[in-house]
Amino acid sequence: QDAKAGRAKASAQCAVCHGANGLSQHPEAPNLAGQVEMYLMKSLEDFRAGRRVNEMMTVVSKDLTDADIANLAAWYAAIRITAEPPP
Amino acid sequence: QDAKAGRAKASAQCAVCHGANGLSQHPEAPNLAGQVEMYLMKSLEDFRAGRRVNEMMTVVSKDLTDADIANLAAWYAAIRITAEPPP
Repeated sequence: QDAKAGRAKASAQCAVCHGANGLSQHPEAPNLAGQVEMYLMKSLEDFRAGRRVNEMMTVVSKDLTDADIANLAAWYAAIRITAEPPP
Repeated sequence: QDAKAGRAKASAQCAVCHGANGLSQHPEAPNLAGQVEMYLMKSLEDFRAGRRVNEMMTVVSKDLTDADIANLAAWYAAIRITAEPPP
């Protein structure tokens, strides 16, 4: 897969809700930064196949190719994240 | 909601796959650290109601109360994350 192609695709179609760095810009949209690659792929495949339904994602995922899905997953998974639980 | 109660519940039932700090310990389990609170609540409600199906989550979510869901969402959302896209 090609994270750079995924980055380009994401900036065109996903960043408006999921943010340019994968941190959500929309109260219902999840952060995708550093998300588990297999989970991202499964989510996109499920939305595209209708196994999972969401008003926005059902539409957005409809025309994604397998390559798009692999590239998008690779891109978001490549964003480095750190996590610090509150004290 | 009560993030501390959520932290206790999470360490008992969720951390095995989602990690003590919300970073996934399982190749199919998503990171939950710093995830959007409303998204976390919707996901848990959907799993519990069967609107969304996953082998593990369908079982784990079955007996969650509304308070559990609110507390778990508050806990994971409270974990501070940073995101740094690759150059």
